[in-house]
Amino acid sequence: MQQALQAARTALYVTSPNPRVGCVIVIDNTVVATGATQPAGGAHAEVMALRAARQAGYSLAQATVYVTLEPCSHYGRTPPCVQALIQARPKAVVIAMADPNPQVAGQGIAALKQAGIEVLVGIEQEAAFELNIGFVARMVRGRPWLWLKTASSLDGQTALTSGQSKWITGPEARQDGQHFRARSCLVLTGIGTCLADNPLLNVRDIPTSRQPIRAVVDSQLRISPDAALFNGDPVWVFTTQSNAQLAAQLADKNAQLITLPATPDGQVDLVYLMHWLGKQQINEVHTEAGAQLNGALWQAGQVDAILSYIAPVVLGPGRPLMYLDPLPDLAHARRMEMVETQLVGADVRIQMRHAQHWQQLYTQIQIEEQ
Amino acid sequence: MQQALQAARTALYVTSPNPRVGCVIVIDNTVVATGATQPAGGAHAEVMALRAARQAGYSLAQATVYVTLEPCSHYGRTPPCVQALIQARPKAVVIAMADPNPQVAGQGIAALKQAGIEVLVGIEQEAAFELNIGFVARMVRGRPWLWLKTASSLDGQTALTSGQSKWITGPEARQDGQHFRARSCLVLTGIGTCLADNPLLNVRDIPTSRQPIRAVVDSQLRISPDAALFNGDPVWVFTTQSNAQLAAQLADKNAQLITLPATPDGQVDLVYLMHWLGKQQINEVHTEAGAQLNGALWQAGQVDAILSYIAPVVLGPGRPLMYLDPLPDLAHARRMEMVETQLVGADVRIQMRHAQHWQQLYTQIQIEEQ
Repeated sequence: MQQALQAARTALYVTSPNPRVGCVIVIDNTVVATGATQPAGGAHAEVMALRAARQAGYSLAQATVYVTLEPCSHYGRTPPCVQALIQARPKAVVIAMADPNPQVAGQGIAALKQAGIEVLVGIEQEAAFELNIGFVARMVRGRPWLWLKTASSLDGQTALTSGQSKWITGPEARQDGQHFRARSCLVLTGIGTCLADNPLLNVRDIPTSRQPIRAVVDSQLRISPDAALFNGDPVWVFTTQSNAQLAAQLADKNAQLITLPATPDGQVDLVYLMHWLGKQQINEVHTEAGAQLNGALWQAGQVDAILSYIAPVVLGPGRPLMYLDPLPDLAHARRMEMVETQLVGADVRIQMRHAQHWQQLYTQIQIEEQ
Repeated sequence: MQQALQAARTALYVTSPNPRVGCVIVIDNTVVATGATQPAGGAHAEVMALRAARQAGYSLAQATVYVTLEPCSHYGRTPPCVQALIQARPKAVVIAMADPNPQVAGQGIAALKQAGIEVLVGIEQEAAFELNIGFVARMVRGRPWLWLKTASSLDGQTALTSGQSKWITGPEARQDGQHFRARSCLVLTGIGTCLADNPLLNVRDIPTSRQPIRAVVDSQLRISPDAALFNGDPVWVFTTQSNAQLAAQLADKNAQLITLPATPDGQVDLVYLMHWLGKQQINEVHTEAGAQLNGALWQAGQVDAILSYIAPVVLGPGRPLMYLDPLPDLAHARRMEMVETQLVGADVRIQMRHAQHWQQLYTQIQIEEQ
């Protein structure tokens, strides 16, 4: 299963909106074939591995198939993998986690068992879940999994009072962050960051065959059609306003103006936005924004995880991670759960997650013993 | 040498102001005796190990002695260890680092060589140096090594605006911090923290046979003789004022009022204070203070290392790590060097150090190849 997870990881940047899946076929304790999900519309991991085994001339009667996600049982863009497995008739199928997709949800497992194939579920379940947490989030709650990326000093400043923020963290940390951009479906920022830094927000410095969609929350529509963001690749601009002329200008640059409901204070309704993104098959959102959008996402309860880079420097007065209302008491603080910490170049990387959000999703992939 | 370092670590809380030293005696690839420095005035590590070997009946003619610090060559509170080693006449002495004490500084090594004993220096030098960085600092620059301990949220708040700070980090992080208190000679805080939290600042929850001296910087002498700090164990109160009545009240409680020169703005001159502490044989200072003293120490260039505990929480408006003047440009930021990061309970611990300060001291223990 470790090798199947490794195969799934090779597909981390390419399969969206499909889950990243790896498959390994073992005969007599020897790996005879591996497969990983191809870009959406292409073959799934199981089909890739079965094909490879067949081409190499193996009979699968004594084979065990290890797959990181329950094989699909429905016709999507490709025929169901379960059907391919039943035709191949391996001795056993070992599955890391059940598929939370309501169109699958245990039916793939049931179909394999019914065909007389031995099935074992739940091996390396947590690692498989982490690989597809965004896919599970979209399936289970209709909203993507949202990462907030921050880069700050030890005292939590993301910029000086002048706005200068280049650079607090070092080149290794910035490149490390590119891997998190690359695995996302959508890179999200706010209009403040756009106006101040004019960022491109694409994946650079690391190889990827797919670029995430880039998006900006711009409630009052202050963006310029000349922003660097509009480089010809798709961009979504979320606003509460309408402006046909700007919409046409943006459309020329492959950017889409999307008018969404506003909160009472005239900002884009972020909860609505997240549901909207779920409907567009966005699994993972990677946010790189300023204190305004960060704070709004935090206060709206939409932050599922924080990816934080901390530089070994104390800056004093500057820009905070988030604009928040003062807390009346520490008992009201919303605590996350530390996941990992490590040195990255001259800086420290910390990952933390919203424990309840994580648990809510993880619970949904548990299937009843039958 | 690993075992000698381990022996030295067992003495981490007890030997001040002497360095922590470990010694292991090996005959025919077998450890026959180990020793660690005893509390000041007691035997040094080499003497402990030699004594143990002799009592077990070993002849040392074929022995190799591993010791984490160059054996002393001067009469202090005990006779020189070099003399004991020369009398014991082992085949070889392996030394992790030279002694920066100007009364030793290579003379121990020279004396051993002169006596015809094979000497090897520099094995595990950096680990040995870390164990005694405060001792080296005092010897080399006349000032202790100063740790600043902080406990904050991810956004760098150490308390809410109300002052509430109990608790941002969890019990494991707080207990972990006790180990750093225990290894210090002096636990330092500011009057603001004293008045707000009324802390005791002693070592608790972990076993130690020695308590560090506790001290408070109280430039305007605002402390109350009823503060919890005055529990009968020694306390130093640093001020710019004199007050004979308060001095007498404090003396009754084993606390000493120490009047020091003031800076132009009426605060205790912290650079003077650090030199004064060096003269009192203080090797390591462990600071747990508020934004005022932290910022003053930082701006005075007296912070050698930061021990930071970060909780997985974002608090918004609150108290910063340090009160500092705004920086005109990121190029002026004083960068430290990350040393390690790890999860401690629900929190993250980060250690960083002042790279130039560290290097300045480390250079001083390099001895010329002879």
